[in-house]
Amino acid sequence: MAAWRLILAYDGADFFGWQRQSSGVTVQELVERAVAAVFGTAVPVHGASRTDAGVHALGQSAHFEQPAGTRRFSALELRNALNAHLPPQVRVVRVAGARAGFHARFAAKGKRYRYRIFNGSVMPPHELRRAWQVPPPLDLGAMRRAARELVGTHDFAAFAVVSKTKRETSVRTITRLEVSRRGRLIAVTVEGDGFLYRMVRSLVGALAHVGLGRQPPEWVGERLRRKSRQAGVVTAPPWGLYLVKVFYGDRVRR
Amino acid sequence: MAAWRLILAYDGADFFGWQRQSSGVTVQELVERAVAAVFGTAVPVHGASRTDAGVHALGQSAHFEQPAGTRRFSALELRNALNAHLPPQVRVVRVAGARAGFHARFAAKGKRYRYRIFNGSVMPPHELRRAWQVPPPLDLGAMRRAARELVGTHDFAAFAVVSKTKRETSVRTITRLEVSRRGRLIAVTVEGDGFLYRMVRSLVGALAHVGLGRQPPEWVGERLRRKSRQAGVVTAPPWGLYLVKVFYGDRVRR
Repeated sequence: MAAWRLILAYDGADFFGWQRQSSGVTVQELVERAVAAVFGTAVPVHGASRTDAGVHALGQSAHFEQPAGTRRFSALELRNALNAHLPPQVRVVRVAGARAGFHARFAAKGKRYRYRIFNGSVMPPHELRRAWQVPPPLDLGAMRRAARELVGTHDFAAFAVVSKTKRETSVRTITRLEVSRRGRLIAVTVEGDGFLYRMVRSLVGALAHVGLGRQPPEWVGERLRRKSRQAGVVTAPPWGLYLVKVFYGDRVRR
Repeated sequence: MAAWRLILAYDGADFFGWQRQSSGVTVQELVERAVAAVFGTAVPVHGASRTDAGVHALGQSAHFEQPAGTRRFSALELRNALNAHLPPQVRVVRVAGARAGFHARFAAKGKRYRYRIFNGSVMPPHELRRAWQVPPPLDLGAMRRAARELVGTHDFAAFAVVSKTKRETSVRTITRLEVSRRGRLIAVTVEGDGFLYRMVRSLVGALAHVGLGRQPPEWVGERLRRKSRQAGVVTAPPWGLYLVKVFYGDRVRR
């Protein structure tokens, strides 16, 4: 049975996230509908990351298995056929054949996310729903010092919404956490082997907290060691977050 | 009587252009409503450029005269007060006092526009309504050679919708016309002393025509000299066009 891997881009603003659910249009649902329209039968499509409502993707990764006996496509034909059945807010950027048994989520070795902050008092209309507006000036030096405390293998329970009942590990490895600025736009780029629920937005909220001078950079390290969430710290909103890339094989580092 | 100058940014996608009209929400109307809300009385607001429906602005310029006897504001206070009465798709970026008799349109010495083209087969969802998608590869060298023919003082009747009855001059001076590329995004930047109706979009349509190899670069010069519009040439759509800046005094060149 042939398996296909899809690289997807979407504007998350109009959707209730990736994962199919009882109410609200999700990206998974739209992609599954497009695959069903192309192959004439329902096929589950699995995504590497369950992006939240409002979160964007430049390079979500997904896979599905082509039903036996259905029409053969080249990668380019399949890309175009799927796009013809998707709204313009969701695009299949690339299609590639996958080895049998490939699973977009379980085979993922790492992910890169980017978070965009507009740091200024007048939000540009073209950044609405694409960046988080933080009006007061952010101290990038302090944010970078705080970021250094987070790189490495840690228990990130303090920076995520962790289900107490599931008893899964909250240890993750962050291999890269960079803060860059271009004009009034600040980008936080983070790479790691995996991320807990709301972890990236929680990290960015904590970095912004430090950037605003509300806590010193060392505070993020202390919080990490305390392993508990703390009141009064903002979780950055979904509309600034972009899933940039999912890594497979040994290409975790760029 | 105090006059104020406004620098405005807007996402044109939701509006029927700048100029007030009988049907459809326009930016002028929204800004006049905000000024009326702040000063408690209706005041006309004049814009430098009558941007079309769907056209964006990063630096539209406008002015109004403050009604006598109304509250005094600092520029910052007025900016914030106006923004509080505007939808987020329209922002007052800057406010400055203007000399008596200043007129945003009549005092303008020049304007800079930018036109964004996405040159690729899969339109990124985040570029919807922000760039014109041209799927086949564009030849930038040919577009730049064509652009050179257009710089200078010419009769641009062939590149605009000119009213035959108005008998206004269609001679304009283009001081800068540059084509640049970053990844799959192509930007056409144009500066000049003034632009005829749909002139920028008509120039960009002609450059794309050349970039697609449908005509040689010399064709734009020939068309310029013929002074008539030609069938079969696309006028680039409004959603790729941005009014970047309006120049006053002798700052026409950057």
